[in-house]
Amino acid sequence: MTFIDALLNPSSVAVVGASSDVTKLTGRPIAYLQQHGYNGRIYPINPRNEAIGDLTCYADAQALPEAPDVGLVLVGANRVIESVRQLAAVGSKAAIVLASGFGEAGEEGRRLQAELREAAGSMRILGPNTIGLVNLTDRIMLTASGAMEMKDFRAGGVALLSQSGGILGSLLSRGVGRGVGFSKLIATGNESDIEVADLLDAMAEDPATTVVALYLETIRNVEKFRNAAARVIAAGKPIVAYKVGRSESGAQSAVSHTGALAGADKVYDALFKQLGIIRAQTFADLLDIPAALSQGRLLCGKRVAIVTSTGGAATIVADNVGLAGLKMPSPDPDTSKKLLALDLKEAVLDRNPIDVTLAGLRPDLFRSILQILSESPSYDAVVVVVGSSSIRQPDVVAQPLLESMHISKKPMIAYVSPEAPGIVQHLNAHGIPAYAAPESCAAALRALLPRGEDDSAERRAPPAVDGADLPQGSLNEAEAKRFFARFGFPVTREIEAATPADAAAKAAAFDGSVVIKILSKEILHKSDVGGVEVGVATADVETVCEQMLSRVEVAADGANVDGFLIQELVRGGVEFILGYNRDPQLGPCVLLGAGGVTTELYQDVAMRLLPVTRRQVRDMIGELKCSALLEGFRGRPVADTEALIDAVLVFADMAVALGDRLEEAEINPVFVLPEGSGVRAGDALVVLR
Amino acid sequence: MTFIDALLNPSSVAVVGASSDVTKLTGRPIAYLQQHGYNGRIYPINPRNEAIGDLTCYADAQALPEAPDVGLVLVGANRVIESVRQLAAVGSKAAIVLASGFGEAGEEGRRLQAELREAAGSMRILGPNTIGLVNLTDRIMLTASGAMEMKDFRAGGVALLSQSGGILGSLLSRGVGRGVGFSKLIATGNESDIEVADLLDAMAEDPATTVVALYLETIRNVEKFRNAAARVIAAGKPIVAYKVGRSESGAQSAVSHTGALAGADKVYDALFKQLGIIRAQTFADLLDIPAALSQGRLLCGKRVAIVTSTGGAATIVADNVGLAGLKMPSPDPDTSKKLLALDLKEAVLDRNPIDVTLAGLRPDLFRSILQILSESPSYDAVVVVVGSSSIRQPDVVAQPLLESMHISKKPMIAYVSPEAPGIVQHLNAHGIPAYAAPESCAAALRALLPRGEDDSAERRAPPAVDGADLPQGSLNEAEAKRFFARFGFPVTREIEAATPADAAAKAAAFDGSVVIKILSKEILHKSDVGGVEVGVATADVETVCEQMLSRVEVAADGANVDGFLIQELVRGGVEFILGYNRDPQLGPCVLLGAGGVTTELYQDVAMRLLPVTRRQVRDMIGELKCSALLEGFRGRPVADTEALIDAVLVFADMAVALGDRLEEAEINPVFVLPEGSGVRAGDALVVLR
Repeated sequence: MTFIDALLNPSSVAVVGASSDVTKLTGRPIAYLQQHGYNGRIYPINPRNEAIGDLTCYADAQALPEAPDVGLVLVGANRVIESVRQLAAVGSKAAIVLASGFGEAGEEGRRLQAELREAAGSMRILGPNTIGLVNLTDRIMLTASGAMEMKDFRAGGVALLSQSGGILGSLLSRGVGRGVGFSKLIATGNESDIEVADLLDAMAEDPATTVVALYLETIRNVEKFRNAAARVIAAGKPIVAYKVGRSESGAQSAVSHTGALAGADKVYDALFKQLGIIRAQTFADLLDIPAALSQGRLLCGKRVAIVTSTGGAATIVADNVGLAGLKMPSPDPDTSKKLLALDLKEAVLDRNPIDVTLAGLRPDLFRSILQILSESPSYDAVVVVVGSSSIRQPDVVAQPLLESMHISKKPMIAYVSPEAPGIVQHLNAHGIPAYAAPESCAAALRALLPRGEDDSAERRAPPAVDGADLPQGSLNEAEAKRFFARFGFPVTREIEAATPADAAAKAAAFDGSVVIKILSKEILHKSDVGGVEVGVATADVETVCEQMLSRVEVAADGANVDGFLIQELVRGGVEFILGYNRDPQLGPCVLLGAGGVTTELYQDVAMRLLPVTRRQVRDMIGELKCSALLEGFRGRPVADTEALIDAVLVFADMAVALGDRLEEAEINPVFVLPEGSGVRAGDALVVLR
Repeated sequence: MTFIDALLNPSSVAVVGASSDVTKLTGRPIAYLQQHGYNGRIYPINPRNEAIGDLTCYADAQALPEAPDVGLVLVGANRVIESVRQLAAVGSKAAIVLASGFGEAGEEGRRLQAELREAAGSMRILGPNTIGLVNLTDRIMLTASGAMEMKDFRAGGVALLSQSGGILGSLLSRGVGRGVGFSKLIATGNESDIEVADLLDAMAEDPATTVVALYLETIRNVEKFRNAAARVIAAGKPIVAYKVGRSESGAQSAVSHTGALAGADKVYDALFKQLGIIRAQTFADLLDIPAALSQGRLLCGKRVAIVTSTGGAATIVADNVGLAGLKMPSPDPDTSKKLLALDLKEAVLDRNPIDVTLAGLRPDLFRSILQILSESPSYDAVVVVVGSSSIRQPDVVAQPLLESMHISKKPMIAYVSPEAPGIVQHLNAHGIPAYAAPESCAAALRALLPRGEDDSAERRAPPAVDGADLPQGSLNEAEAKRFFARFGFPVTREIEAATPADAAAKAAAFDGSVVIKILSKEILHKSDVGGVEVGVATADVETVCEQMLSRVEVAADGANVDGFLIQELVRGGVEFILGYNRDPQLGPCVLLGAGGVTTELYQDVAMRLLPVTRRQVRDMIGELKCSALLEGFRGRPVADTEALIDAVLVFADMAVALGDRLEEAEINPVFVLPEGSGVRAGDALVVLR
């Protein structure tokens, strides 16, 4: 028996610290197990009781007639470790530890948590500081959550993995209210041992689970999480994640711009995009989107029919659906003809939303309308608006909807305009995702759009690097460019010069104007100290270099200057910034953004965790607003996007190959030249360890 | 008696087309009037009935014993006009017309609607195509809305004015579900006569109304709306508006860039900002924000205490509150000391959210905690998180909360984490705004932030303009600049030249490099046809002009060229675009945005309807991300923001003064120079009628 089986389907459960007082937290779990029909063996453990209800109570784990598959440990933090040690000693597979006062509670707590892990030995621990888990598929409740007080739990396809017990209770109870069915709900608490990633991995094989909802505060082991997510998605089960921490300041101190652009939350966003995980933008989405996905239908296109008997509500839904990027075309002539043949009085059938007015209250007519729209080649989904008359006659709209579900495989969802929680619950429970918020309809439909193919198998082998000859510390621009060129990154043509006179002599190798830059590994932002001049006539190079030197001596007082860099002047390129960042939690990332001043003003950047695939780089470019410049914006030539993709991959491979030796790396700007002309690193920065 | 009194507080009501069958729409209104205790006189009118219930039924309005204050007209479109004519003839003050098939239904409907207005004479019309109105203050229901089937309507301070009857029913029923009380709910339908603006104006004086919620699809008379909104806000009543149409494409065809940037929805956004109307971003906000405002308390600062007995839910609230720009400081030492003195076991009191763990379930302790936080000088508001235990014991948290309300004048709101609609209802009904969505908590708190002072009295007198000597049609750049200079807008120093040789001669008046531009009123985007060269050495002017002429002759084939413009080269300015746009519905606007390529890529623009005040211009600048460039971004000098404000006001005054004669106007770029050096119009475009 695996620890997953022991947690989710135990034949026997020891409840350590069980009380017979059901008003106390320690009295609830046995009551919940029994109320919901657990048919395995329950062993209360409490030296102060002989029995709890009709169950024999044991003094400790040693006294049990068998090794329980799982132990539910309800005792306080001071007694947890001994209890866990005993459970491990008798051979339990897993323990669920509810007590708080461990890793979340300072230095002493962290020490205690380490001790707990040691006491468990090979036995697995869920928690501490968890509210436990609920297996609704098999109605096994191993939890003290107050949400268990509710009635009418519905088994369904949604698995919830939560790093908070309170959120488990919140979503479980909200699911009951809305008629959304769960398979498993598991709170991982402090994750001293079992992490969300372990359970996510298990959900790939849970036959009852068709979609996974995640409540995340952090990801401890990103590699494990990436692998688990890939397995679940490969099994055809979508993942929806709500991640807190969006309002935290993510700016890191770093010499490159990249650090300031790569906030912690943006890295999570990147990870989710990369893995094909749908990010819930609101807390409601974490229930609403899985509810839609668990219908098991996806959109084949973006065309939505909205059918209504009330104007305003349909307008609101249409507005939100439109904002989400979906289309609402009017019915095609053939569909219109079929609708008109129904002879609906006052109905507005030549536009979308399709307002059938009072016909929406006649079940026979409404059924025909739904059939025509579901079968119409003009639509990929049907949204039904349920109006205020449903308060009086809930079945008038609900019944035809339920009967029409099987006409086609297209998604069909409902928006319930008045306060009518019973209708929302009824529809959801019978397989029609139903929402009280127009924003939820839009989010649900968006989540049903087909996602890109998984190309994670395409992971590239990074180049072998002999790092022995690499320097340490910060490189000057010329050194940094040679460094990138060595990995195959195209750089501007340039020559180093020691003095103004030397620069003037060497500038003769260039035609027309050049760029002059100060060369110093101690000056990271050259233009801030007057160390860059663009478009210098070759005749003026010596004077310009002399003036630059005096400016820099003032502005960057004390910095060692290595000389000057004379560089070809690149014209007509689109400027990007390409950077490397190591997120303290999630690890190394590549960042691509709009170049120049725009970078910081508009934060127009895209990120991915390393390693990246070609498709992921293409997705990054697609996310950037500045990418419009690549496509021949306002009469400019179309730029060499494929060369930009190649260049990002070269940069990413370099970063993977160097691993920990790479501290910072940034190419800013990358000039993307017209199609066929490639890219050039205009300036570069590298710090090596 | 005014028409408003007749609608909201009629002594007598005629119900035209009333039926005795309460399952029919025509049978509902009398039943609803009676059920909810209307104590005026009800006169059913229906030639086919003698009585409806115990009310005498009349054949027509002529037969009534008195002129009814208001007529509720339920008959179909074909009989509406005759009924309205009769009501007007007997002297009714207002009629509410439910029938559809008028202005919303094509050409024929519009004709019918004009006829309806004519039939009404001096009697006022609400509708047609309205569901009617509900006066909850006085329990007078003049409506057929199915939402009336609900129980427990609660009178309160929120007035709802809606352009959709379905939305009236939706919000009324949702209000019941959440315990939010309304004063009046009025649906305006087609607004053939009475508009939202008329009713809004009336709400300024309705003593029961403390906040107004608007559901808007359009604004018919913007001047009337602006005046009404200003009156309501001056009466201390905030306005919250949900406006659909956000997903409509707003791009207009125009020669200037301004047209493409000024989408219809952005103009509404501008109008709301300008008037101090809070825009509901989600449909839920339209109920949630008024619920918060109707508590009658505002934030004095941005510091929020979140108190909880459950971790995850508080984390979510904190994340959303943080995203909304509010702060959650840890308790100050004095507050901490008081909390610690309560000796709460396991509570985490040195950070925020303040997790009081199980103490949150002990009413005495919880009351003390709420008192300490309400009185703490560190906080401007308290958010209480209600956890899953409330399912079992709803009063344990709710009771102390209600008792603590009066301790201070600071806003206190609740987040209810589990599905517990009863608690949300109970708290709202007793004056504590309570929410089931963390996003709603954040939106509610934001809406309680103090708003800017109203400076609408500061409306500026536009300059008197003798338009007789103004040219018509499109002006070339030099003419356009002279045009703006005449109104006092600073422009670049420049000289016109007829030929390349003339240009070379005149360029001698400039030091160093100049800008050369082609001069033609037929070429509106000069750089697209190679008609701009920046940084030309005076010695090269003739050659550059000759080359430019050949390029333009190819690229803008057939365009008449007036000559060349030799212009001072402005360095170091921050570039903006300043434009004029006439929204087809809302009228003339001024638009300020980021200059250059950025303008279109990032749509970083701010707008206001004309006329504007100095504060409104300052607000516009504050909205722009590119305004960071004015403040000395990355070592640049601080720019002359006051001069930019002056310039925008000059531009706006010019537009007001010219009125309809102005078709298009745009200055792009406006260079904002370092502090004390003012601004310069770099290029300009004017089209006059």
